[in-house]
This record gives sequence, C-alpha cells and structure tokens, in this order.
Amino acid sequence: MDPRSMLRSGERLDDLLTKDLKIIQSDEVFSFSLDAVLLARFCSVPPRGRIVDLCSGNGVIPLLLTTRTQAHVTGVEIQPRLADMASRNVEINGLQERIDIVCGDLVEYPQSAGYGTFDLVTVNPPYLPANSGETKLNQHIAAARHEIYATLSDVASASAKLVKSGGKVAMVHRPARLADIMMELRAVKLEPKRIRFIHPRKNKEANIVLIEAMKDGKPEIRLLPPLIVHEENGAYTQELLDIFYGRTDSLSQQ
Amino acid sequence: MDPRSMLRSGERLDDLLTKDLKIIQSDEVFSFSLDAVLLARFCSVPPRGRIVDLCSGNGVIPLLLTTRTQAHVTGVEIQPRLADMASRNVEINGLQERIDIVCGDLVEYPQSAGYGTFDLVTVNPPYLPANSGETKLNQHIAAARHEIYATLSDVASASAKLVKSGGKVAMVHRPARLADIMMELRAVKLEPKRIRFIHPRKNKEANIVLIEAMKDGKPEIRLLPPLIVHEENGAYTQELLDIFYGRTDSLSQQ
Repeated sequence: MDPRSMLRSGERLDDLLTKDLKIIQSDEVFSFSLDAVLLARFCSVPPRGRIVDLCSGNGVIPLLLTTRTQAHVTGVEIQPRLADMASRNVEINGLQERIDIVCGDLVEYPQSAGYGTFDLVTVNPPYLPANSGETKLNQHIAAARHEIYATLSDVASASAKLVKSGGKVAMVHRPARLADIMMELRAVKLEPKRIRFIHPRKNKEANIVLIEAMKDGKPEIRLLPPLIVHEENGAYTQELLDIFYGRTDSLSQQ
Repeated sequence: MDPRSMLRSGERLDDLLTKDLKIIQSDEVFSFSLDAVLLARFCSVPPRGRIVDLCSGNGVIPLLLTTRTQAHVTGVEIQPRLADMASRNVEINGLQERIDIVCGDLVEYPQSAGYGTFDLVTVNPPYLPANSGETKLNQHIAAARHEIYATLSDVASASAKLVKSGGKVAMVHRPARLADIMMELRAVKLEPKRIRFIHPRKNKEANIVLIEAMKDGKPEIRLLPPLIVHEENGAYTQELLDIFYGRTDSLSQQ
C-alpha cells in the first residue's frame, strides 16, 4: 500500500533520515523538532524490556528508538488527532509489533499500566507555563508548547511511578527551567545523573538541555561535553549531523 | 619594605598575573587554584558597596576583586594560619583600605556582620563530603577540600543571611554536586540565575561549575557558553588565558 494514501488533509510524509524511517507530520498540528531527535539519541536504552514515551506527539521518539533497541515501546499522547497520526506512523513503518500508541492522559497512565513497569521513560514535555507567551496558537500547537494538559510536576510524578527502581527517565527541556527540573525530579526520587547542554553556537548560551535521572539513584551528576549545533559560518557541525542522521550513538555512550 | 621579609617558613611569593598583584602561598597550607580565579572573574560585581568572600583561604579572591570594583571586600577564613596569610597578602599589595580579613566561622559571621549587609557574596567552598577520599592530608589542605568546618548547606545558609534582597551569591563547585547546590540555594531563597560549566577540553565532561544566584530572584536560568580550558594540543585556550591574565571581564558580562 502506498503510505501516501494514509495521509489526511494538511499532512505530509517526511523522511526521518534514519534507516529509511518515514513520518507523517503537519505544520498545523505537530512536526517533530531537533529536541525529539536529540532525546532519542541521548537516552540510555535498555537492549530489551519496556520503554514508555510520554507526550509522544506524532510518535517520532518511539520510531527512532526502534533503531537503537529491541525493547518494546509505548507512546502515550493525550490529543486524539496526534495519537491517530502516531498510530499511522507506526503502521507505515511496519512497526506494529514493536510500538503501541496509547491515547490517554499521562497522569492517569501509571494506574492502568502498573507501577514500576518500565526500564526507561522518555519525555519531551511542553516547556512553557500554561498562561505564558503567545495565546493565539491553535490548540494542538499550544498543548505541545504549554503546560496545559500536564505540568512539569505531573510529568516527573508520572515518570517516577512508571519506571522501575534503577531504571532511567530521560527528558529534554529548556535550560531556563533547570532548577525546577532538578527539584521536581528529586522530589519523586529521580536522581539526575547525566546532563548535556546544547548551544546553537559555541559562544552562545544553551537553549536545550538533555537530562537523564535514575530512579533511587545515588547523587552524582556527569556533566557531558557541550553539543554545538552550528559552526561559525552557520553550517551544521559534523557532530550534530552525525546525531541527526543516526550515524552515531555517541550522545548516549557518553 | 621588601615583601619577602613577610614570608614565613615554607611560603613563597607568587605573581598573581593581574595588575602587578603579588600573593603569598604555600603548598603545605594553601595555594590558589584556577577555580578561585574563574570565580573572581565570573561574579557580577557591584561598582561599589560591600562584598564578602567566604572560605577565603589566602585571600586570592578579595585581591582579584579589587581589580574589578571599588567595593569594599571582607574575606572570612576560619583557619588562623590562612587568615594570617591573607592579612599579609592584603598588606604586601597595599590594599588595607579596600580589604578586611576576618578570622572566624562563616556560620557565626552573619550574627556579627548583620543580615542583608552585602551586595555580593563569593565562595569557593570545600567540594567533598567530610569523610570521603584521602584521609592523610594535613589539616589545612583537608579543610580546604572537605566539608569539615562547613557543609554546603551551612555555606548556602550563611550566604543567604549575609546578602541583601536582590544581591548576588556566586559560587564555584563541582558539577557532580549540581543538584545538591540547586536544592540548597533554593531552600534559602537564593535563585540560580547564571551558570557556566568549565570543560578541560571541548569533548570532555565539565569538572568545574560557576553558579550565581540572586536573593529573592525570579526563577530563570541563563546557561552560559562552555568555557574550554585546553586546546586539542594541550595548550591553554585564548579565552582561558585572557581570563587568567585579567585581560577580559567577559566571564561576568555574559
């Protein structure tokens, strides 16, 4: 079947640039970002077992994770239109055996999935408080950017319930919120262990942070080398391209 | 008077590399480190007013701060032998009008100095828990490295008492303790505002963190560009040399 027949109005089929993966996206609703790709490469994946991706959007992180592990991945997304897009993304890539998409609220999900069920939780949550910034965004975009359906505290709490003791929770967020993130993680016994900052250029402030915590871990943080996105001349750095095209797992091995 | 006449057994007179400053040091007792120089350049100094440097050692930070501000600086050091060395360092540089050295316990100092008295607190505290690591160090070195006289919590608490609302507290520490630092600062209403990580090389993990908090500040962190110490070939980077020789205040202006 031609995957294009599965597109709905306003959607397009993009190349995910890694191992022939394809992805349905829509600028009206949701397109994956660098943040998601970085998180999918950064997290410490178990070789098998179970992974859950919260705030999964169109399922980009579950798709990318299948290139790094044989673990089963569940994507949880609260917006029906996005969950539907994620399900079709699983189908067009023939990954129905490896990925499940659940349309539901992450706050309620631990109750149904069971506590301590997962080896790894990944999450690319909304970055901004509910009532900040632009207010004219459509509901889908607004929910991806703002803490409308779930706050940082909700995300940390659900993650802590879902992951087993010794398991990992990997998050991508904004450095401006670093202190909040640390507080919320520690409040639920998720101990920050690995942090990497992403700088647009080597002499610019970081605009993305990758952070991985261990449930019940011992306090000791490894602060990984900075990842620089652009060279002075504006081109992408070799390291960024290698990560983007899936040519390296260096992000997670560090 | 020849400053060398002020040296005691085991001490030497070194060049502080900035504006003809000299410094008495001793490998048996205390020598200043890169950490202290970075902190002295990183902190946001008030043009005038009052600054206090806790865990002041041989007074290297007060000496360096006089090249950046007309503010009066007080150095607080608990070990009499180091406080004496700091006092002589003030004297050999003719800075008696600008720097006071107090030999005392930082935990008790806010009581005598008064609450909310300072515009800026700087502190290069011991990095390691009291009972960790090497145990055969002499008492002076051990106290500089281990939380023997004061814990991180004591340091945060004393700093919060000493600084005025809206004033700054700047600290240098180890990235491994980042979560602890954030928690202790926030617990006493010191909101982390500026953070810079120091990496020995661009592809290595950070081994030093500079962090500045504002008393009663609004939560929002600026994560400054990484500072790289060595080039690939082992030489110091130009940026590090500029900071070390006091040719730039770039660290604080960012």
